[in-house]
Amino acid sequence: MTNLIVQKYGGSSLGTLDQIKFVAKKIKKSLEDSSKIVIVVSAMGSTTDELVELGESFLKDNNEIENLRDFDQLLSTGEIISASLMSMALRKINVNVISLTGQKAGIFTDDLHGSARISSIDEKVILSELKNRDVVIVAGFQGVSEFGEVTTLGRGGSDTTAVALSSALNAIRCEIYTDVKGIYTADPRLVSDSKLISDISYDEMLEMASLGAKMHPRSIEIASINNVEMIIKHTKYESEGTKLSKNNIKMEIRNAVTGIPTSKGVSKITINNIDDKPGIASSIFLPLSKMGISVDVIVQTAGNDGKTNLSFTLDDKDLDSCVNELIKNNVSKKDFIRTQSGLGKVSIVGTGIQNQPGYASRMFETLSKNNINIEMITTSEIRITCIVKSDDLESAAKSLHKEFI
Amino acid sequence: MTNLIVQKYGGSSLGTLDQIKFVAKKIKKSLEDSSKIVIVVSAMGSTTDELVELGESFLKDNNEIENLRDFDQLLSTGEIISASLMSMALRKINVNVISLTGQKAGIFTDDLHGSARISSIDEKVILSELKNRDVVIVAGFQGVSEFGEVTTLGRGGSDTTAVALSSALNAIRCEIYTDVKGIYTADPRLVSDSKLISDISYDEMLEMASLGAKMHPRSIEIASINNVEMIIKHTKYESEGTKLSKNNIKMEIRNAVTGIPTSKGVSKITINNIDDKPGIASSIFLPLSKMGISVDVIVQTAGNDGKTNLSFTLDDKDLDSCVNELIKNNVSKKDFIRTQSGLGKVSIVGTGIQNQPGYASRMFETLSKNNINIEMITTSEIRITCIVKSDDLESAAKSLHKEFI
Repeated sequence: MTNLIVQKYGGSSLGTLDQIKFVAKKIKKSLEDSSKIVIVVSAMGSTTDELVELGESFLKDNNEIENLRDFDQLLSTGEIISASLMSMALRKINVNVISLTGQKAGIFTDDLHGSARISSIDEKVILSELKNRDVVIVAGFQGVSEFGEVTTLGRGGSDTTAVALSSALNAIRCEIYTDVKGIYTADPRLVSDSKLISDISYDEMLEMASLGAKMHPRSIEIASINNVEMIIKHTKYESEGTKLSKNNIKMEIRNAVTGIPTSKGVSKITINNIDDKPGIASSIFLPLSKMGISVDVIVQTAGNDGKTNLSFTLDDKDLDSCVNELIKNNVSKKDFIRTQSGLGKVSIVGTGIQNQPGYASRMFETLSKNNINIEMITTSEIRITCIVKSDDLESAAKSLHKEFI
Repeated sequence: MTNLIVQKYGGSSLGTLDQIKFVAKKIKKSLEDSSKIVIVVSAMGSTTDELVELGESFLKDNNEIENLRDFDQLLSTGEIISASLMSMALRKINVNVISLTGQKAGIFTDDLHGSARISSIDEKVILSELKNRDVVIVAGFQGVSEFGEVTTLGRGGSDTTAVALSSALNAIRCEIYTDVKGIYTADPRLVSDSKLISDISYDEMLEMASLGAKMHPRSIEIASINNVEMIIKHTKYESEGTKLSKNNIKMEIRNAVTGIPTSKGVSKITINNIDDKPGIASSIFLPLSKMGISVDVIVQTAGNDGKTNLSFTLDDKDLDSCVNELIKNNVSKKDFIRTQSGLGKVSIVGTGIQNQPGYASRMFETLSKNNINIEMITTSEIRITCIVKSDDLESAAKSLHKEFI
């Protein structure tokens, strides 16, 4: 459909009735530029947290499929509430609008309850509604499985709903409205002279998203695959925002580092004296993934006598349950497990990194000059990440920002 | 299905997670007597009130169908939340259970959003689930219209869901669990020696329900038409409860009055000097019903010169908007409208009343002896109702209870 845009509003933009009224006016104003708009909404404020808290008291140690199905049915109500209210708010100011649940909007997913993936979208549903209406509101974060069960896409899933709808409906743009003005070169709370990035490639954003900036990584993947033009903007304050698109090639790359993402709350587990044989890694990480423990940086080093050492990082909050699980699964005796918490992660990200050597050594040198010890290192084609002590994170971000940006 | 019972739990029984756990244990215990149970749940505690408050800020003066449709979609989430949680709570204590929204349970309604009526139930859905499970939880208060839209049945609609399911599934009994032990001969807060009624007929209950006892009147109608055996019990305290069934015929009727229902918060509007011509009543009451103003006792008396006087009672809260509506619709000039608030309603109810004369005069005499002035009188086959001053309500209930019970 020509001239169609998709807008997504996050929970922090919809925390109160006044905020909903504000967004409704904003959407009405957008109709001056676009004749048809599809709106994706998250749950109001902390609604999802509250629902999770209610459900988790019955969820612990009981992750069978039917329980996750009930849990999804529970969580999906948050977005249905905000979609219904947003529709009523727009109708009150005379916008021709209707709201749809994810299921009614024809968003089909697999049946991985709690972290379902969108398998297809029946675009005819929304296109048919748009024939008679100017705005269609869709409850984000949710879909329906082939068994007719409500599913949810995992935390931040409304971003993915918005991008997937943009692709299916062939929208000219997907606008993500949130509580920041866009993506910065570093966390502004740590680095006061960090700058707003006006253009960023999907690949760079993918690294930024998973390393601190609040975007659902899968939404970036889908945008990248389907070449959806995305723009991240502040709901309340006018700004150019940060535009995501396929190519961020500039004729002259003056500085290859796009941003310095950071994150706190990292713990490290090291397991020593593991038998160095095939299948050992999966025997460690499979039970963890089943428990929903997300493991990040993994480093394996050779030991002696057919033994190996393995270190990995994870969220502080998962540290205790992870250690218990490792001992329960006989992966290692307690004596061989070392843990360290109070760590942080700092990265340099940029498409230029893969083409030009020397970035790694410049990064390590900068940290060293500032007396920051590097605990672990990991790299991708467009990113170099160091694990450092949490207390060193601010100084690391500042010095790297100064060096590269 | 043989041995199937339906249980309904009201919002006051599901206010907290601890209450939900308590009810889950209670349901598990019920499985010792019944091999299959269908549970209908209301929204937790005051959830519906909170959702109504959210929605009403956008609903005022905007009652078009699509707004009511969004509003229903909003309100339906309350029962979906409690159904999901109850299912998870039962599964945690090893009950084989699944939860369904009203829509998934095959509850079809007309499209009168906000006060939809159940048109049919596809009983195969729940019966099929019960083949492999012991308990099916159904979100009360909701269904789906022929257009595939979520509808709600109006306040207290979960009672109606429970009775309609009992009828469709041919359950042996419909148990309504609430925060009182059953139906009393009078309001225990007014009459300290009021007694629990062990057996009551549908007709009597219908009069009791609409006159104070908390039951959705339509649930009683459906129970009566389909001869569903209902029992009203306290969720927390063991008691025999009050049993509703078709025939409450005793061999020797010692006292024909079953109960003395009372209610407060009644206002009266009198319109004088109305043209006494056909259609005048509908010209008054049609706009009021469109506004959702419920009118109760109506009395018309002849006036002079082709003019007539008409009085009716309504909820205190509707008084001002009703007067405004009457003037707006040119029903009457302001000068001819008299209002009176601070009234109450007291009735005697019993199947015996229709067969034996003298109840009305005994009632009026009792009130008169206690210096209670009667403002209006209305009667049905099994009920005599007097409108009195609110301040006289307690003394009226006490003296009538003493006289008749």
